[in-house]
Amino acid sequence: MPYLSSAFHDVPAAAPLRVNGARLNEWLTRFDSIGRTPTGINRVAYSEADLAGRAFTQQLLRDAGFTPRIDTAGNIYARLEGTNRALKPILIGSHVDSVTDGGNFDGPVGSFGAIEVARTLREKGTRLRHPLDVVIWQNEEGGTTGSKTAIGEMNDVELAKVARSGKTIRDGIGIIGGDVSRLAESVKKKGDIACYIELHIEQGGLLEKAGKQIGVVQGIVGLRWFEVTITGFANHAGATPMDQRQDAMLAAAKFTVAVNDAVRAEPGRQVATVGRMVVSPNTTNVIPGQVVMTVDLRDLDQAKIEHFTEVFERLAREIGAATKTTFAFKRLTDSKPAVSDPQVMNWIESSATALGLSSQRMPSGAGHDAQEIAHIAPMAMIFIPSVGGISHSPKEFSRAADITNGADVLLNAVLAADASPAAGPP
Amino acid sequence: MPYLSSAFHDVPAAAPLRVNGARLNEWLTRFDSIGRTPTGINRVAYSEADLAGRAFTQQLLRDAGFTPRIDTAGNIYARLEGTNRALKPILIGSHVDSVTDGGNFDGPVGSFGAIEVARTLREKGTRLRHPLDVVIWQNEEGGTTGSKTAIGEMNDVELAKVARSGKTIRDGIGIIGGDVSRLAESVKKKGDIACYIELHIEQGGLLEKAGKQIGVVQGIVGLRWFEVTITGFANHAGATPMDQRQDAMLAAAKFTVAVNDAVRAEPGRQVATVGRMVVSPNTTNVIPGQVVMTVDLRDLDQAKIEHFTEVFERLAREIGAATKTTFAFKRLTDSKPAVSDPQVMNWIESSATALGLSSQRMPSGAGHDAQEIAHIAPMAMIFIPSVGGISHSPKEFSRAADITNGADVLLNAVLAADASPAAGPP
Repeated sequence: MPYLSSAFHDVPAAAPLRVNGARLNEWLTRFDSIGRTPTGINRVAYSEADLAGRAFTQQLLRDAGFTPRIDTAGNIYARLEGTNRALKPILIGSHVDSVTDGGNFDGPVGSFGAIEVARTLREKGTRLRHPLDVVIWQNEEGGTTGSKTAIGEMNDVELAKVARSGKTIRDGIGIIGGDVSRLAESVKKKGDIACYIELHIEQGGLLEKAGKQIGVVQGIVGLRWFEVTITGFANHAGATPMDQRQDAMLAAAKFTVAVNDAVRAEPGRQVATVGRMVVSPNTTNVIPGQVVMTVDLRDLDQAKIEHFTEVFERLAREIGAATKTTFAFKRLTDSKPAVSDPQVMNWIESSATALGLSSQRMPSGAGHDAQEIAHIAPMAMIFIPSVGGISHSPKEFSRAADITNGADVLLNAVLAADASPAAGPP
Repeated sequence: MPYLSSAFHDVPAAAPLRVNGARLNEWLTRFDSIGRTPTGINRVAYSEADLAGRAFTQQLLRDAGFTPRIDTAGNIYARLEGTNRALKPILIGSHVDSVTDGGNFDGPVGSFGAIEVARTLREKGTRLRHPLDVVIWQNEEGGTTGSKTAIGEMNDVELAKVARSGKTIRDGIGIIGGDVSRLAESVKKKGDIACYIELHIEQGGLLEKAGKQIGVVQGIVGLRWFEVTITGFANHAGATPMDQRQDAMLAAAKFTVAVNDAVRAEPGRQVATVGRMVVSPNTTNVIPGQVVMTVDLRDLDQAKIEHFTEVFERLAREIGAATKTTFAFKRLTDSKPAVSDPQVMNWIESSATALGLSSQRMPSGAGHDAQEIAHIAPMAMIFIPSVGGISHSPKEFSRAADITNGADVLLNAVLAADASPAAGPP
């Protein structure tokens, strides 16, 4: 089949296709007014602003010549048909909901980038063998609800959770046009999707620091959350000599420093964060009797998560003995790393190269819908730089040129996937 | 005057007078039921329980043959007349109000100890040259209101403060029988009091650790409270590499450890405590952007307070530079050390020796009414051991034998003061 062969060999190698970057960025600029408040973008799932954002997105699909449909989970899909009916769809997309007081780039860049890729292919008359599905997952920020449902991981406990909009996920699904009683109809199984590629802002500062234009995401890191309760003895801050204290705050401080030192002492990209600390009685003139704190530990390698768990527990024992306090650990969350597919990473990497863009491989420290889809399909993600490494903040920003680069890479990765024998027979 | 001479030379040296310890401890046992709640003693100033405690105390005075009177500040006084009308009174006493969820010993030991001393002197027919005044200061725990008023340091700002009972100090004074419009009548000036001696529980663990029965208090430490605001940059806990963080929590932890190390690295009894920490946004998966914390610094030597202030500010600059955060200091409270009178300390020390009790000199890390009276009269305090060093807690406890020892020392110190030429002409 010479036509398809031509698409495969020529496009990425000699004259890569390019999206309409000006159009894509104009969409993002218009989208910025939806859910904009004095403290940032507030398009939290199931809110009025989320509904407005979803309507805007569906209109973009219609303007591009597609017919959006809402699945029973509330995800938005649109399809560009392929030439080979035997092939499973290539899936691209992201989300348009936001955190509280967030920015305009986390989600919309990948969502609108996917729409722009589909529109470019349609406009240029480039026919793919595979169907190309654009997906806009619902409630990514509140627990990857849409993609979790798509892999059959939704349950009553999850549905009963109250989202940031104040509505339960169960009610939210109805509000956005889904049907909780028919969620099973939206579940995909292994083999249903040829591959999944998600474009996203990095949300960190690695690319900016390295001076690279494209991140080839090796996977979404696994995450373990510990709640650590340190018990000492509350006593008078004036009358208790320094050598007779059982100071839970001092123990918590030593542990915070030790956790930081430990993860930095070994090579690798593991991160650990003490984000929360609740002190009791939290009074200026009383030696704290108890501190409850959290540690957020992440790495792409599960063995490292297990290793640092042991390190933290050992440090806690040592600090507890030295400060006459006790440490109790409780695990709040435990999610395994989601590793990218090597071939999908290669398609992204070679597309970046063909486009003359610098790239590097890197883990995603943040969670994404891609981590769910990794359970049922080969996946990888494309990152573009976040200015200052800032995200989940009104200061979140990515440059128009970088956004265009990301969509160009997505477009060419889709073409490479479509042409690959591995993605299905030609 | 042979009689007085005899009292001076013989009593402490050969056969020291002793209080009725069983009676004193029985009073304390009965007092334990007033304001007792499931979470501890709650006799906060101006509460129903405080009123009941004050009534109980006045009845003890009446039972001892005294006529209690309430001054316009709401302090309770009772007098044992002396033989020399030219001499100013020796003042002894403490307080009977408590903190929230406190114990039965902080205050009552010294208050009832003073009543027992006066009763013993009356019962034994021991005539003092000086009048002996027993005082029960009001609202010690809420800001030494009674003793502050006694030295003329009460003002409208202080009177408008809301005490733990929910009543303003102004209203509270009326409730306990004082008269806010006539506070000036309760003010004492320099020369009005021969000396002030206060018996109190230690509220720390120095005596217990040293195996000593009596603490001769060298003074009440000065205190400086800092509020330290550490500003970093809130960012994603997963996506931000360890070397690109401006982690306010890590900076706060390093500073907490450094403050502790600094005060322990130098000889002396200085103490510093980080008792309060408020983290923002205080979320497991966000690197904290801001921490507001307090440091409570105390020492008997003002020069040391100034020294450690400089040390803390230098440490903050170093840690701020290392963690890419900024530290801002604000002083919440600043009170100067109140130094004991050497002669009053000697009377206490020699009384302990005469009674066969071990003693050591030590600072008071906690605040007391004595620190106010130090401004107008020679003062010193007598400490007895706190079991486990615990105070301001339902677990606060002092042994009956130690309480009796303390009252015995108070009795003999009063006799020594009365006999001393320095306390007034014989």
